Amino acid sequence: MEKENKCIVVLSGGLDSTTVAYWAKNQGYSLYLLTFKYGQIATKEVKYALKIANKLKAPIRLIDLSSLKKIFTGVSSLCDADIPMTSKFSQPIIVPFRNAILLSIAVAYAVSINAARIFYGAQGSDEPFYPDCRREFYKSFEATARLGTDLVITIEAPFSNMPKSEIIKLGSSFGVPFDLTWSCYLNGPKHCGKCESCVNRKNAFAEAGILDPTEYNE
Amino acid sequence: MEKENKCIVVLSGGLDSTTVAYWAKNQGYSLYLLTFKYGQIATKEVKYALKIANKLKAPIRLIDLSSLKKIFTGVSSLCDADIPMTSKFSQPIIVPFRNAILLSIAVAYAVSINAARIFYGAQGSDEPFYPDCRREFYKSFEATARLGTDLVITIEAPFSNMPKSEIIKLGSSFGVPFDLTWSCYLNGPKHCGKCESCVNRKNAFAEAGILDPTEYNE
Repeated sequence: MEKENKCIVVLSGGLDSTTVAYWAKNQGYSLYLLTFKYGQIATKEVKYALKIANKLKAPIRLIDLSSLKKIFTGVSSLCDADIPMTSKFSQPIIVPFRNAILLSIAVAYAVSINAARIFYGAQGSDEPFYPDCRREFYKSFEATARLGTDLVITIEAPFSNMPKSEIIKLGSSFGVPFDLTWSCYLNGPKHCGKCESCVNRKNAFAEAGILDPTEYNE
Repeated sequence: MEKENKCIVVLSGGLDSTTVAYWAKNQGYSLYLLTFKYGQIATKEVKYALKIANKLKAPIRLIDLSSLKKIFTGVSSLCDADIPMTSKFSQPIIVPFRNAILLSIAVAYAVSINAARIFYGAQGSDEPFYPDCRREFYKSFEATARLGTDLVITIEAPFSNMPKSEIIKLGSSFGVPFDLTWSCYLNGPKHCGKCESCVNRKNAFAEAGILDPTEYNE
């Protein structure tokens, strides 16, 4: 297998990164998926990532960073149930520097399997709120990765300028099984329908004019 | 406590990072230590890091990234006992992008405890061989950390231009208990005396003209 053909996709199990995986497959890449436990409440997303990997018949590695929970406790509502979950963006939704942690491990994995490309699911609707979803961040990270490995590794978020509704339209064209993706920050039997991520998901399906297959609590 | 006064030291339990911790304390910083299991064979170094923290009366967090062992297996002799350990530098001694992984978690920790400075033990003797010990790497990482957090976090390796022998001299002036540091890449009852890291340690003590308190197997 050619080095150029391999790519790593950081797959959360949400719809953005899942669409990235389908997009990459459609571009002709051989997929190597990485998913993470990092202390998030919604460990269910990891199960959805595994379902997507199975659907894509792509190898996936689950990296367990649950030890980080102690760092994110008291900091992020995604990792600490005692911090109120909000329906609109609020500072505690941010898991500080999370994407850098995940990308740094993706770079190590890229070196280990001789892959030259890493894709992740940062998207345009999040870009104003989440610094580690911005192009200037991940391009700086890419430069750092090249300095830190002496290898040319490319890091891209192909949808970083695209609103979530457009990602849904694109995903729909690839046949992404959105019912096998999990966006909710909580870990209930169904999507809560109330957290920022559920609200964004609902609104994006409505904006896209595509039927939302998600079962919400409300 | 002032934000400016807090610092995080990435402490491996080896003599370089231990001297960094003593140096930082000497500079007047309040120390917050971080140590890691990342799949290394020499988990004993973590125990030494805990001893140093105890000696310094500084809080330490042990972050368990043992899940990374599966990524570094087949790649680095520090994590895979089936890869021969060499006495001189060889490519498999490198754990790819390890320092970026550790620093990215240190940045998250810095955000969580409101610290503005991170120090790690990259040193001049390693600089030609290990890309993630170079100043151009960690300064690029620092720029990335600022973009990825919207905060001004400083990352320094105060000894990155200093040979190991000079670090030993400096550490000696601070009273660093070198007998409570672990350099060996293996995990035996004593330092093996043969791996690259033991050889570097031995030679550096000899160059510094300071008595090496280490018990080596040979």
